[in-house]
Amino acid sequence: MDAVFLLTDFGDRDAYVGVMKAVMLGIAPELRIVDLCHSIEPQNVTSAAYVLLTAMPYLPHGSVVVGVVDPGVGTARHIVGIRFAHVTLLVPDNGLAAMVLDRYAAEEVVAIDWRRVRDTLPSATFHGRDIFAPAAALLASGQRRLRELGEPLSIDSLQRLELAPHRAADGSIEARVLHIDRFGNLITNVEAAACGIEPVGCWQCEVNGVVLPLVRTYGEVPEGEPLCYIGSSGFLEVAVRNGNAAARFGSCPVIRFLQVST
Amino acid sequence: MDAVFLLTDFGDRDAYVGVMKAVMLGIAPELRIVDLCHSIEPQNVTSAAYVLLTAMPYLPHGSVVVGVVDPGVGTARHIVGIRFAHVTLLVPDNGLAAMVLDRYAAEEVVAIDWRRVRDTLPSATFHGRDIFAPAAALLASGQRRLRELGEPLSIDSLQRLELAPHRAADGSIEARVLHIDRFGNLITNVEAAACGIEPVGCWQCEVNGVVLPLVRTYGEVPEGEPLCYIGSSGFLEVAVRNGNAAARFGSCPVIRFLQVST
Amino acid sequence: MDAVFLLTDFGDRDAYVGVMKAVMLGIAPELRIVDLCHSIEPQNVTSAAYVLLTAMPYLPHGSVVVGVVDPGVGTARHIVGIRFAHVTLLVPDNGLAAMVLDRYAAEEVVAIDWRRVRDTLPSATFHGRDIFAPAAALLASGQRRLRELGEPLSIDSLQRLELAPHRAADGSIEARVLHIDRFGNLITNVEAAACGIEPVGCWQCEVNGVVLPLVRTYGEVPEGEPLCYIGSSGFLEVAVRNGNAAARFGSCPVIRFLQVST
Repeated sequence: MDAVFLLTDFGDRDAYVGVMKAVMLGIAPELRIVDLCHSIEPQNVTSAAYVLLTAMPYLPHGSVVVGVVDPGVGTARHIVGIRFAHVTLLVPDNGLAAMVLDRYAAEEVVAIDWRRVRDTLPSATFHGRDIFAPAAALLASGQRRLRELGEPLSIDSLQRLELAPHRAADGSIEARVLHIDRFGNLITNVEAAACGIEPVGCWQCEVNGVVLPLVRTYGEVPEGEPLCYIGSSGFLEVAVRNGNAAARFGSCPVIRFLQVST
Repeated sequence: MDAVFLLTDFGDRDAYVGVMKAVMLGIAPELRIVDLCHSIEPQNVTSAAYVLLTAMPYLPHGSVVVGVVDPGVGTARHIVGIRFAHVTLLVPDNGLAAMVLDRYAAEEVVAIDWRRVRDTLPSATFHGRDIFAPAAALLASGQRRLRELGEPLSIDSLQRLELAPHRAADGSIEARVLHIDRFGNLITNVEAAACGIEPVGCWQCEVNGVVLPLVRTYGEVPEGEPLCYIGSSGFLEVAVRNGNAAARFGSCPVIRFLQVST
Repeated sequence: MDAVFLLTDFGDRDAYVGVMKAVMLGIAPELRIVDLCHSIEPQNVTSAAYVLLTAMPYLPHGSVVVGVVDPGVGTARHIVGIRFAHVTLLVPDNGLAAMVLDRYAAEEVVAIDWRRVRDTLPSATFHGRDIFAPAAALLASGQRRLRELGEPLSIDSLQRLELAPHRAADGSIEARVLHIDRFGNLITNVEAAACGIEPVGCWQCEVNGVVLPLVRTYGEVPEGEPLCYIGSSGFLEVAVRNGNAAARFGSCPVIRFLQVST
């Protein structure tokens, strides 16, 4: 019995997530269900795509990940199952898997057909409960294989997101914020390794025109001072030591990275 | 071993819920415990009654549901166990079960006696930990049957809530808000089927005097536009597509449904 | 297989907690993982120390408790394993265990060496994922004993917090707020039994100069009135019946307890 991980924007004010779990346990009573995150900003597919990517390397082999950030629920968008070497994603085809697809090789893609996971018409507004949950429980419990849940789709047909940072003529990099974490840290779309920002000592970071030190840990700057560092998932993050960068700089600041020496 | 589902207003700032789980696992180490919701507005029994109702149809057979939204903790109100065909509720007798009792047949009601679930005096303020949790663990693990936990009560003695919408002389329906969900959707006390609001095309919805389309899915109105639809639990909901209806209309707007044709 | 309980300030906006669970399940697929609390105010070690203490008496025998409120992550502070008679704590050595250490006898303390829990260098910013999670999974699943995860430390070397209330010359007690709970209740650092505030009828409580009744339950004061009572963990708490004491008095009010008769 493999585990199911859940990533949604359902928040905690309702029983939406609990009901998804109830449905899954009705199908597979021994299923292990783990919350990845349910507080994605409502309908912020980019933020969800980032959070999903950060979790990928740590998911146990065989896991099924259900991602429901789905502004298009009830429209014609597909729900897709995407099988990778170590996990299978069940997501709406809206870009939620885009950052993962840029970095991991998909081995199989299936457009989920609700008729294969339930007998009665799903609601128009809660596919998490009516399609995603039963599909995940059937897959993770081994009652169905992915290919039995719908028709194959081409990997190339999947929705992608345009998230690469812009590189200016002078070699500087214009970043944007993918996600704001609990501490107000601003996670940018600049992956240090992919953008060649290593060692960090050769680069500087400007946020709203203010130059920040690029350092390894919080401890390298005084309390209350802003800093930029390579976050635990490899993306450059703007933070304030023991403070809140989103409050300091706003949730959508102008962020640039400049090479200062070679 | 049956599962326990938890519904409280304990929020997430404390270990209240975690301690309830610790107590249950001390009694039944293999128990499966699932969060339905812990962010019910503090002491909002109506909202909890609604959320509980929405979960009911999806709970696995044999589940024990613990609902602790309990402004009367420490007073003489009963804690009751209510057995239905597929699940057993453990709730304070304050109306939390009222919407369920209106729609499901109770088969047995017991006033829980704390002496049957613990040896020492419970605290005056945390019955979730001291009475609900051990009672639920004993029931779900099969160590006790409901009737062993207290004395029978009459179903008719249980606290009810007055939640039916008001129907005016002209046939229009005056609604009120039962619950506001994560997306700011306003869930009304108007159950479409019970109130005869089908097909929706024959009705219109007015919120604070603004006429809203009654539609099937979000996709039927432009982004940013308000709409009314039958939610996934059968109640009429007011929403704004990719927006927030509670922010638009307030948390307590004047909502009316009018028949426009027959 | 023992259970792991998690206490962090990671909040719910990210997959930080979910990723810790993924890491643990990769090491011990059958591990039971329980959330104590993840909404500790960021980097508020005192609040975490209090919440941890409240959970201690209820944790099942053998549990491993992971506490990650860690402003010093990436600096030289130790991660310590502290074994008590019934549970083992894994915490940064920053005072998080201080209130527990004041009340429970530690039997063994070990400075965790990351080389004993993983093969590759941990990140500088996410030790929850990279050190705490694997250490907890190895311990709780019985794959390692605490002493195998690092070198012994002296109990006396552990960081403590100065949390005892100040007793003035006139016998009055000056309290401060350890923690604000979900309901806005102000939990003080005054433990009724330890401070001799029993029976409560012999004492009065002043908050910002306002005299509050010291009572047993909410029900003893009218709705909307402030009160002081012995909370479910034995500390005196300031509350407003069906209201919010933090909103009424601020999060950092002047609180005094005065003996009014003997």
